[in-house]
Amino acid sequence: MKPAFEMALIQRGARLRRTPFFEATQRHGAKGYTVYNHMLFPIQFDDLEAEYWKLVNEVTLWDVGVERQIQITGPDAFEFTNLLTPRDLTDCEVGQAKYVVITAPDGGIVNDPVLLRLAEDRFWLALADSDVLLWAKGLAHGLGMQVELAELRVAPIQIQGPKSKQVMQALLGEQVLGLKYYHFIQTAVQGMPVIVTRTGWSGEVGYEIYLLESDQGSALWESVMEAGKPYNLAPTGPSDIRRIEGGILNYGADITLEDNPYEVGLSWMVDLDQEADFIGKPALARIAREGPRRKLVGVEIEGERIEFNMTKWPVSAAGAPVGRITSAIYSPSLKKNIGYAMLPVEHAQLGTVLSVSVPASGERKATVVPRLFVDPAKEIPKA
Amino acid sequence: MKPAFEMALIQRGARLRRTPFFEATQRHGAKGYTVYNHMLFPIQFDDLEAEYWKLVNEVTLWDVGVERQIQITGPDAFEFTNLLTPRDLTDCEVGQAKYVVITAPDGGIVNDPVLLRLAEDRFWLALADSDVLLWAKGLAHGLGMQVELAELRVAPIQIQGPKSKQVMQALLGEQVLGLKYYHFIQTAVQGMPVIVTRTGWSGEVGYEIYLLESDQGSALWESVMEAGKPYNLAPTGPSDIRRIEGGILNYGADITLEDNPYEVGLSWMVDLDQEADFIGKPALARIAREGPRRKLVGVEIEGERIEFNMTKWPVSAAGAPVGRITSAIYSPSLKKNIGYAMLPVEHAQLGTVLSVSVPASGERKATVVPRLFVDPAKEIPKA
Repeated sequence: MKPAFEMALIQRGARLRRTPFFEATQRHGAKGYTVYNHMLFPIQFDDLEAEYWKLVNEVTLWDVGVERQIQITGPDAFEFTNLLTPRDLTDCEVGQAKYVVITAPDGGIVNDPVLLRLAEDRFWLALADSDVLLWAKGLAHGLGMQVELAELRVAPIQIQGPKSKQVMQALLGEQVLGLKYYHFIQTAVQGMPVIVTRTGWSGEVGYEIYLLESDQGSALWESVMEAGKPYNLAPTGPSDIRRIEGGILNYGADITLEDNPYEVGLSWMVDLDQEADFIGKPALARIAREGPRRKLVGVEIEGERIEFNMTKWPVSAAGAPVGRITSAIYSPSLKKNIGYAMLPVEHAQLGTVLSVSVPASGERKATVVPRLFVDPAKEIPKA
Repeated sequence: MKPAFEMALIQRGARLRRTPFFEATQRHGAKGYTVYNHMLFPIQFDDLEAEYWKLVNEVTLWDVGVERQIQITGPDAFEFTNLLTPRDLTDCEVGQAKYVVITAPDGGIVNDPVLLRLAEDRFWLALADSDVLLWAKGLAHGLGMQVELAELRVAPIQIQGPKSKQVMQALLGEQVLGLKYYHFIQTAVQGMPVIVTRTGWSGEVGYEIYLLESDQGSALWESVMEAGKPYNLAPTGPSDIRRIEGGILNYGADITLEDNPYEVGLSWMVDLDQEADFIGKPALARIAREGPRRKLVGVEIEGERIEFNMTKWPVSAAGAPVGRITSAIYSPSLKKNIGYAMLPVEHAQLGTVLSVSVPASGERKATVVPRLFVDPAKEIPKA
């Protein structure tokens, strides 16, 4: 492992944690790390566009060990977990996963994890970047509920791309072929216990392998690389180009604690009709009745190829500031600048033309479009 | 502002926030940023040892806008804030600050902020790196307490070093001279409303200026730089060398949710005798009675100059693993390798000799010493 200069730039001392795959990502040439859930997160191995084409045409391997697992167990585990999220979990079977939002009393989104139900009274949340353990501990203590809450030493990787099924079959055999979308199995890779889910953050076919023994990170990584060799499996960061094309949201950028599910297009997750209570139910019922005031919409931004937005670019209508771009990127497939904007509903209708202030480039016309830029049913035009 | 390549390494998209001083730190040559409370935190402008000597001999300016402010207001503000921390706040006057720990039900430390009392029913917490807003919101909701909790758009800078008083006087006049340690005043810098505290993370004389209007970051930064010109004020990152010499802890490295105040030497903050309840009181009373099982101690590590520890190096006694180094660095003043280790109490006595596994350097002898390496009353030998 090289004591890379880049590390000094984002780390001082042992405050930031490493995933079990850290050494493997260094060996395989990770060039850039961000910080996510207080851990180093490798986000770049190659040019971002080169990584995009690997994902779209072949198959990629991502270290997403930063998706920390919060485990909820104990006598009140079901009741408590069902209270955390507006989704009705009564129909969530053991072996099933669900994309959920965790909501605050005002309906604001605390996190948007993938939930796994491992037993009647055992749930995991694979977290986006916020300290849900603190939220859950505060709430459980305040309510006096009988739950045990812990962050586990469990770390996922993602295998995403059209050839991911072949890689998974090479790694795990036939058992993986019948795995349904948002379901999981408990199995082993060369004796290493894992959980395998049909989930991912790419809009392509994909899987996650949750490593259960944190000292086996390098061994699991190399096993997957070996199985993927015939399919040109490449380690990459998650692809922001592909996830924006696919209408997928990034917590912290497109969703924050200030935003509710009705604003960010996740109202399908709010089961107001369920009998059980959940945190934020009265606030969300009111928002459902009155309608949200803002909406996260798709936008196409005119002009030359943009660089990835590092800040939330201002959006204006008739010269007056109205909102912000939350994500924006150039899609090499669509040959367009695409992204999302949070806008007041009166400026959020399809076809509305607005102005975006792009750093070092000035004002550009932007048009409100559907947020799903690439239909999952359609094939992306290959490079 | 240069679209520095380094930024791409730690950031993708607008997920990570910038402090109000970001542009100023770019103009003034920040070379490295870490991530803290989901924000970019400039931690390096020059060689770390050069920055240390600037701090020890003259005066330095740090962007610590990442110390996010949580405001607690409402009818139950005092009761709730007093419940959050084991410190008895009944004697905390308006205008006073206190270094506090926020504790979980098991006594584990959620955060170690500086608390400011702005009014009888208005408190701010200047946070270390964890989402205390989520902890506090969960707890308040669960307990049904009447408080309003918000993260403010307030951002501090630190002015630290032996010449900091002169800089502050040049900036704010006589009013700052009478300011007592852990007290604050509300004032203005060239019309910009600020709060000034006699606090800091350096072991040197120092101040913090809390910027209240987030669009005035560049203006405040330049005003401070201008006032500091005669004193060679230099923008730097916080100095880990100096803070370790001074026995100061870093949340995430030296303190985590797994550690309680008795383990990390902060038992002086636990007021078990107060009438009021606080979160973790029964657990901490038991630990006080039984004594902690582990202790964070000072260590001197023999041999050549070490590099700053990027992981928690293993510590062993007679060949068996017993604990971890949480922070370690070479002190150019003391000409020694110094640091902290979390150890079982049976290995924590002063003078105990242990072995530390230093990456790429092998086993080194380490001796348990007092955690305060440089007495604040004594002057550091100048370079």
